[in-house]
Amino acid sequence: MAYSVISRRLALTLNTNLRLSVSGCRYASKAAPKAQVDFDYDGPSMKTEVPGPRSRELTKQLGEIQNVAAVNFFCNYEESRGNYLVDVDGNRMLDIYTQISSIPIGYNHPALLKLMSNPNNLSTVVNRPALGILPPENFPDKITESLLSVAPSGMTRVQTMACGSCSNENAYKAMFIWYRNKERGHTSPSNEELRTSMINQGPGCPDLSILSFMGGFHGRTLGCLATTHSKAIHKLDVPAFDWPIAPFPKLQYPLEEFSRENAQEEARCLEQVEDLIGKWRQKGKPVAGIVIEPIQAEGGDNHASAEFFRSLRKIASKHGCAFHVDEVQTGGGCTGKFWAHEHWGMDDPADIVSFSKKLLTGGFYYKDAFQADQPYRIFNTWMGDPTKNLLLSEVLSVIRRENLLVEVNRSGKALMNGLNELQAQYAGILSRARGQGTFCAIDVCDDATRNNILQKARNKGILLGACGDRSIRFRPALVFKEYHVHMFLNLFNDVLAQIK
Amino acid sequence: MAYSVISRRLALTLNTNLRLSVSGCRYASKAAPKAQVDFDYDGPSMKTEVPGPRSRELTKQLGEIQNVAAVNFFCNYEESRGNYLVDVDGNRMLDIYTQISSIPIGYNHPALLKLMSNPNNLSTVVNRPALGILPPENFPDKITESLLSVAPSGMTRVQTMACGSCSNENAYKAMFIWYRNKERGHTSPSNEELRTSMINQGPGCPDLSILSFMGGFHGRTLGCLATTHSKAIHKLDVPAFDWPIAPFPKLQYPLEEFSRENAQEEARCLEQVEDLIGKWRQKGKPVAGIVIEPIQAEGGDNHASAEFFRSLRKIASKHGCAFHVDEVQTGGGCTGKFWAHEHWGMDDPADIVSFSKKLLTGGFYYKDAFQADQPYRIFNTWMGDPTKNLLLSEVLSVIRRENLLVEVNRSGKALMNGLNELQAQYAGILSRARGQGTFCAIDVCDDATRNNILQKARNKGILLGACGDRSIRFRPALVFKEYHVHMFLNLFNDVLAQIK
Repeated sequence: MAYSVISRRLALTLNTNLRLSVSGCRYASKAAPKAQVDFDYDGPSMKTEVPGPRSRELTKQLGEIQNVAAVNFFCNYEESRGNYLVDVDGNRMLDIYTQISSIPIGYNHPALLKLMSNPNNLSTVVNRPALGILPPENFPDKITESLLSVAPSGMTRVQTMACGSCSNENAYKAMFIWYRNKERGHTSPSNEELRTSMINQGPGCPDLSILSFMGGFHGRTLGCLATTHSKAIHKLDVPAFDWPIAPFPKLQYPLEEFSRENAQEEARCLEQVEDLIGKWRQKGKPVAGIVIEPIQAEGGDNHASAEFFRSLRKIASKHGCAFHVDEVQTGGGCTGKFWAHEHWGMDDPADIVSFSKKLLTGGFYYKDAFQADQPYRIFNTWMGDPTKNLLLSEVLSVIRRENLLVEVNRSGKALMNGLNELQAQYAGILSRARGQGTFCAIDVCDDATRNNILQKARNKGILLGACGDRSIRFRPALVFKEYHVHMFLNLFNDVLAQIK
Repeated sequence: MAYSVISRRLALTLNTNLRLSVSGCRYASKAAPKAQVDFDYDGPSMKTEVPGPRSRELTKQLGEIQNVAAVNFFCNYEESRGNYLVDVDGNRMLDIYTQISSIPIGYNHPALLKLMSNPNNLSTVVNRPALGILPPENFPDKITESLLSVAPSGMTRVQTMACGSCSNENAYKAMFIWYRNKERGHTSPSNEELRTSMINQGPGCPDLSILSFMGGFHGRTLGCLATTHSKAIHKLDVPAFDWPIAPFPKLQYPLEEFSRENAQEEARCLEQVEDLIGKWRQKGKPVAGIVIEPIQAEGGDNHASAEFFRSLRKIASKHGCAFHVDEVQTGGGCTGKFWAHEHWGMDDPADIVSFSKKLLTGGFYYKDAFQADQPYRIFNTWMGDPTKNLLLSEVLSVIRRENLLVEVNRSGKALMNGLNELQAQYAGILSRARGQGTFCAIDVCDDATRNNILQKARNKGILLGACGDRSIRFRPALVFKEYHVHMFLNLFNDVLAQIK
C-alpha cells in the first residue's frame, strides 16, 4: 500500500501551508464542487502544536474561573469554515468531532450567516419567550416546517427543550405520567396521591423505574444519570434510583464471521430485559419505560442489529412499558438516515424519540398517548429557544437542497472502506471498525495508544474524539464529503505509521 | 379615594387608543425621560379580549403539536417594546410578568438590537461550541465582564449552564462530590466505589440527600423536582428521592404587628431543620446540602427575615452541609439589589448561588472547595450558550448605565405603597402585600377571585402572574419606572372596583 509515502508528502505540503494537492494520492477524489469550496478550506494548516501558546494562556485564565481540565484548546470561530475548526494560534484542523457531534452543516455555513443577518430575525434573538405560555406568532409554523417535517414514523407531536438532558428528563416524566394514568384507568389523582406527592412519597411519587442498558448514556442530570452507565466518573458520588440495568449486546467483529455468536448474544440480552422487567415488578418498582440509544455513543459506539431493536420494541409493548429511543447523538442525518432508528425498518419504532445536538434545539417527539393530561406537568420557563428553531429550519433546508444524506452515505462508505483497510494494515493497533453513515468508530489496542493517536492526529490537523474505553469515534458534520474522507485517511495513515 | 373615577376615565382613554394622559390622575409621575420613551410605548392599547381571535386560531394549530393548556396568547415580539408586550391581535399590554420573570431590560431594548446587529457577533449565534472542551477566544473575558462582575460575595468561580434546572442539578452534584470528598478525606475513590457507581448502588452512588423547604421551587427535572414542593401537579407521578423537607416560615402580616409571632415561627422552622439533619443522618442519608430561595417565588412569594437566613447559613456550616441559595427567580436586580441574598448583609452568604431567567444564561457560582476535582464530572455538551453571555454582558452595561437598581428601588417603593393603599381600600379582597424592590406580591381572598382579577386586568392591558394558592406576583422588568407603577395602580384599582 502506498499510504505512507503519499501521506508524508501530503503532511509536508500542509506544513508549508500550500494549497492541498491530492493528485497522485491513493485516496484522490474529484475536485470539490464550487458550492462547497465557497465556505470550506482546502485542508488543514498547522502553525504550532495543539494547544498552542495562546490556548495555554487562555486556559490558565479560564482556570481561575472554572475547571478547565477538559478544555482541548480555544477556538477562533469567526475564522472557522465548513469542516475546518481554526484555533486561537492560527491552526486549522479538519474537524471530525464537531463539538461532540453537535455541528450539523459545518462552521459559518453561508445560509446560516445570511439567515441571522436578516434584521427580521433580530427580535427572536433578543426576546426569548416563555414558550409554554407566550409563544411567538410563527412558532407553530416554524415547528411544522422544521421538527415535524422530519418527525419519526407514527409521531405528530413534539415538545422542544433546551438541551439533551432536559429532553430526556421530561421524556421520562411523560412516560411516568402515562404509566400511572394507565394504572389508574383515568387521569384524576386521589387526594392521597396529591398529598403524598408534595412530600416525595408514594403513591403520589410512585416507585416506578426506567430500564436502561449498561454502556448507555442519556445525560448527567439526576434522572438521566440514573440511566447512564458509560463511565464511573460521570456517576460517582451522585445518588441514584434503584432502576434495572440490562446488558447491551457485545458484538464480535467482523460481523459476518460471528453471526451465530452475535445472534446468541443479542438473545441473551433480550432475555435479561424480560427477566429484569419481571424482577422489578416484583420489587414493587415496575418498569414504566425502556430507554436506549440506537448506537451507544459515549459508551463506545456499541451497535446492535435491527432485529435486536425490533424484538426489544416488541418486549416493551408486551409488558406495557413505554419505548424511548434516545437519538440525541445519532439523530440528524449522520447515520445516513435522518434518524438512526429508521435503519430498523419499523412503522412504529418508538413511543418517544428524544433529540438535541445536531438538531440545535433539544426536545422529544411523542405519540398522542404520551401528552400530559394537564398543563404545567411537562413545563419550564423557556421550553427551548426559538432562535434554535429558526436555525434548525434553515439547516433542514440545506440538508435537502444539498442532498446531504446522500453525501453522508457516500462519505460513510468511503470512510468504512478506509477504516477496514487501515485495520487490516495495522492489525496490531486497530480493530472492530464499525459504523453507519459517517457515524463510525474503530478500536485501538489500548487506552494509552488511543490517546497518543488522537494527540498526534490533532497535531497533524485532524480533530477526533474518544469514546468508551479505547475507541475513536468519527463525528463529522453532514458536509464532510468523500474528498474529506480521503484527506483524513491519508493523514491518519501517516499518524499510524508513526505509532507502528 | 379618587381611584375609581380616574381609572375609568383612564381606561376609556386607553380603549380609544389615545396617548395616555396622566395629568389629574392621583398617581401622576413626571414625564418619562426621553431615553425610555424611545423604546417604550405610552400605555396599553386593547383591541380585543385576550386571547383574541388570532391567538385562539394559533392555539388550535399548536394544539395539534403539543399541550397548549398553559398558553395565554400568542405574541408579536417584533412590535413589543420596553415594558409592553404586543399580542398577535394587536393588543398592547403593560407586562408585569415578563415571561415568568425572565426579561431583564424590557423587549427589544435598543442596546441589545444594536449588539446583535453587529456582524462581528454573527459567528457566535451560528456556531454554538461545546464550551467545556472548545471555548471561544473571548469566553474568559466575556465571563469576567459579565457574570464575575456581579459575583456574590466570596465567590470567584462560575459555571454556565443552559437553564435553571440544569444549573440546580449540577449544583447538587457539586455539593454531593464535595461532601463525599470530605467524608473520604481525599479525592481518590476506591475500586468498589467506581464499580458500584456504574450500577446505581452504594458506596459509589451514595445515599446522600439535599434538604429543601415546603413551598420551595427549584425546577422540574428529577433531581430538582425532589427538592420542589410548590404544587402537587408538578410532582405527581414522578419518582422522588427520600430527602428531608423542612417547613418554611409562614409570616403574619403586617410584619410590624406580628414581630414576636414571626420570630417564633422562624425559630420553629430552624429547629426543624436541625432536627431533620440529625434524623436523616441517622437514617444513613446524610444531608450534603441545603437549598433555599431567598424568597419562595412559585410557592407564593413567601418571605423570611434576614435573621432567619443568617441563622440557617450558620446551621448549614455547623452540620457540615453545603448552603445553596437558588436565585433563579430572585437574581438580576428585581429585589433592589443584584442578588436577593445581599439583603442578608453577609460576607459569606452561601457556598453555591444558582441563577437563570433574567441572567439569560443559567449557571451557578461556587466557592473554590466546590470545584469538581476531575474533568467531565460537571459537564455536558453545551454547558451554556455564548450568545446568552454576549447578551448578558450588554444587559449588565445597561443596568449600570441607566442606574436601573436605583429605579427598581424607587418603583418598588411606589408599588408597595400603592399595594398597601389598595389592600386597605379593598380589605375584603386583598391582603398580605409584600415585596422587595419590585419583586412584590399580594394575596387575594380566594383562587377564583384571583383568577378573575388576573383575567380582567389582562383585558385592561395589564399582564400579571399568579403564584402559590391565591397570590398575584409582580415581576416587571428592571425598566419598569415609577410612572409605570402609577399607570398600573390606576388600572388595577379599576379592576378591583369591578370585583368589589
